Amino acid sequence: MPSIAPPLQGQDSIRLNRFIEDNKERFVTGLSKMVAIPTVSADPPYPSVFTQMAEYAQNLFQTSGGTAKIVPTNGNPVVVGLFHTSPNNPTITVYNHLDVQPATESSWTSDPFTLRIDKDRYFGRGATDDKGPALTAFLAASFAAQEKIPLNIRFIWEMEEEVGSRNFESFVKTKKSDLKTDGIVVSDTIWISARQPVISTGLRGLLCVILRLKTGQEDRHSGLTGGVARNAIGELCDAVCRLHNPRTGEVLIPGFYKKAKPPTKKELADFEQCGFSVSRFKRDHKFHSMRSRDRLDLMRRIWAEPTFEMHGIVGGHMSAGVKTIVPQTAEAKISMRLVPDQDPNEIFHLLKKHLKSINTDITVKKNATLSPFKGVTSGPLMEMAEKAMQAGFGRMPVRIREGGSIGALPTLQKYLKVNGAPVPVTFLGLSLPEHGYHAPNENFDWRQAEGGIKMFVRFFEETALQKWQK
Amino acid sequence: MPSIAPPLQGQDSIRLNRFIEDNKERFVTGLSKMVAIPTVSADPPYPSVFTQMAEYAQNLFQTSGGTAKIVPTNGNPVVVGLFHTSPNNPTITVYNHLDVQPATESSWTSDPFTLRIDKDRYFGRGATDDKGPALTAFLAASFAAQEKIPLNIRFIWEMEEEVGSRNFESFVKTKKSDLKTDGIVVSDTIWISARQPVISTGLRGLLCVILRLKTGQEDRHSGLTGGVARNAIGELCDAVCRLHNPRTGEVLIPGFYKKAKPPTKKELADFEQCGFSVSRFKRDHKFHSMRSRDRLDLMRRIWAEPTFEMHGIVGGHMSAGVKTIVPQTAEAKISMRLVPDQDPNEIFHLLKKHLKSINTDITVKKNATLSPFKGVTSGPLMEMAEKAMQAGFGRMPVRIREGGSIGALPTLQKYLKVNGAPVPVTFLGLSLPEHGYHAPNENFDWRQAEGGIKMFVRFFEETALQKWQK
Repeated sequence: MPSIAPPLQGQDSIRLNRFIEDNKERFVTGLSKMVAIPTVSADPPYPSVFTQMAEYAQNLFQTSGGTAKIVPTNGNPVVVGLFHTSPNNPTITVYNHLDVQPATESSWTSDPFTLRIDKDRYFGRGATDDKGPALTAFLAASFAAQEKIPLNIRFIWEMEEEVGSRNFESFVKTKKSDLKTDGIVVSDTIWISARQPVISTGLRGLLCVILRLKTGQEDRHSGLTGGVARNAIGELCDAVCRLHNPRTGEVLIPGFYKKAKPPTKKELADFEQCGFSVSRFKRDHKFHSMRSRDRLDLMRRIWAEPTFEMHGIVGGHMSAGVKTIVPQTAEAKISMRLVPDQDPNEIFHLLKKHLKSINTDITVKKNATLSPFKGVTSGPLMEMAEKAMQAGFGRMPVRIREGGSIGALPTLQKYLKVNGAPVPVTFLGLSLPEHGYHAPNENFDWRQAEGGIKMFVRFFEETALQKWQK
Repeated sequence: MPSIAPPLQGQDSIRLNRFIEDNKERFVTGLSKMVAIPTVSADPPYPSVFTQMAEYAQNLFQTSGGTAKIVPTNGNPVVVGLFHTSPNNPTITVYNHLDVQPATESSWTSDPFTLRIDKDRYFGRGATDDKGPALTAFLAASFAAQEKIPLNIRFIWEMEEEVGSRNFESFVKTKKSDLKTDGIVVSDTIWISARQPVISTGLRGLLCVILRLKTGQEDRHSGLTGGVARNAIGELCDAVCRLHNPRTGEVLIPGFYKKAKPPTKKELADFEQCGFSVSRFKRDHKFHSMRSRDRLDLMRRIWAEPTFEMHGIVGGHMSAGVKTIVPQTAEAKISMRLVPDQDPNEIFHLLKKHLKSINTDITVKKNATLSPFKGVTSGPLMEMAEKAMQAGFGRMPVRIREGGSIGALPTLQKYLKVNGAPVPVTFLGLSLPEHGYHAPNENFDWRQAEGGIKMFVRFFEETALQKWQK
């Protein structure tokens, strides 16, 4: 038997295809209901939105032969679902998140929280990040349970991923004895293109900060005071331009790059092989121009190098027209993506120190920290993931790093061990660049859901087999 | 007869005091009604707000023995009111504006468009800028008419002053034959302190611009694209920091200062004499610190030197929390105060040229231009204004420049001539630093209204006398 042949053959394969056909409507209805619950963790529209989401998720498991618990935290609850077979079978844990980014952009062409269906494409906030992939993995697991694949499948559905997973550590710490698992698979990553699946071998970390400056009590008239009044927005801009070069992206904080490990030769070789296209990337993201067009340089910049971004400046006059005041209060929203082995808390310390030398009146508040993540680049879990991708989409995935951050992963590895070592983690992402992660008109599509169900079923089979063999 | 003795003496003076006493309630009711019409020219809440204001103003004249016309323009109408005595009498024109600044600041302690009366202090947007002074001058004129002072008093009440008087020139050009006048008095300037009235000898001009940068179609995820995506807010900050130094205020546009005339020795001597207090200025404006604490340097900075201010940056994520996107569209709202003989259009050209050398993708839009204004520093009109101030408030005004801008003045002098020379202009302002021009909790007070009525009555008498003597 060739190593990449699908285990489900003949009748089995026909049953899977029929399951997918029979469950398409269920998928669309489910995604529609999940998108309609506006779980914006940064700015929830009403307090009970996360309870509502958790109850909907719990009900999904309970009506499909599984069980689910809603675990409260100091913030939003975590849903832990389970399709249990036997304590003697191995256990695989699937991680997704059900909170979403804000959807305040004016360029949404339809209501972000009402699923808009355009043939096999589904538009709505959270469609691809990460409700669509969560539902795909869930359907695959319910099929695996129905087929009695000898595996226990646990789901961890977090609802604070988009705000730095701030209560996830206390959840894992408290529940670690209930969360024992042989491996973790994360479904919250993005392909190179619709034709090129990937498996991530690392993630960037994150440090979010807010800089604040208050030079007076209230904004003042620029005719009366302009020339001598300090301008809070101007001084923040000045400081930010001394913390980084906004044109090149170079960070100017002394010591910032010291612990940033450059990618290995092997990783760079994998990057070279991965089928990344500069022009497709530019087109997918609708950029007019970019900081670099050199292919390898571009990949290094988005996957393996740290960044410094201004997300917004609040203060002064932000509505229509020009109001000639000298703003006295301003706030700059900033984040830095970090790479292994940069430590967010160390970087925060360096930032604070450098800022003090620039402008002593600016205060800095740490808003969120996520450690960078180094994943596996070889071993049985990687091979199983590769086989599953191949089975679902007919193509071998390439190994790249991911530029985003998933705060839950370093935490899971810190508390969950297999034979004393951190639990192995792999990635089975389903999102595509054109799905618009964190962007207006976010969407998911049936092709990814259909292939995704096949991929996850194959992954569950592989992991079940693997464990029998050990 | 001593030159500063008030002409209204004995019975006359008693009648004026009784008029003021009898009209206090009328003043408060009138101000309350005017503040309740939210004439925010930069962002009107509904289209008919200026018609409503114009009709209210017209009615004021018609019910007080005067007449008034509402003159339509391509923007907001101008109200021209008149108390007419005889074509043989001289004519004085009082300029005010009835539009107001936006009132979106969160620190308003009561609704900005509902007059809050706290003893003899009146809080509301436009109370001091410029509805309160307009109403004060109006009451004085209605008393002068009632007393049959041999003078024609015309009022020009504009409603686009806060947005650069963009249709005022076409109004004056079209109506110049109806607007013939022997002198103009502007009541829209601010004292040094509650104890020190001023007469302005010059005003700064203004150039408002909006810088825009669009580096892609939509904001993108900073994990997916950060490092290679251009950051529109960051690049705007960079450009702005190359156009000026936000800490010192120094403008870095080549040629910017070339035509800026430093104040004369006489002017500087007047500044020195004017009773300006650094600590009172700081306290009145509620500043924590300022760019300068040197008294003469501070006065030069706010009255006689040009500025560059950032009023706000729009783009990216401006609501609660941090959203890790790379903003692809951003807009910086900027204005420059200009001094004689800087020309706003020339400065705009220099700015555009320099910006092109900084970042070719940034576009710049001219939002408003106002020429700087050189007023009279001597002559009969200045003397009459000084006598009027003395009569109203018991103190001689000092001569300073004003840091603000009134776009209408250069226009009025361009089209209205007396014996071929530009019509003389003087200033009788009533606002105090603590009134909060353009700031939250803007207010006016009865002391200024009461003294203001006396001041204007005396000014009208002086101008009537002056003309009889010629």
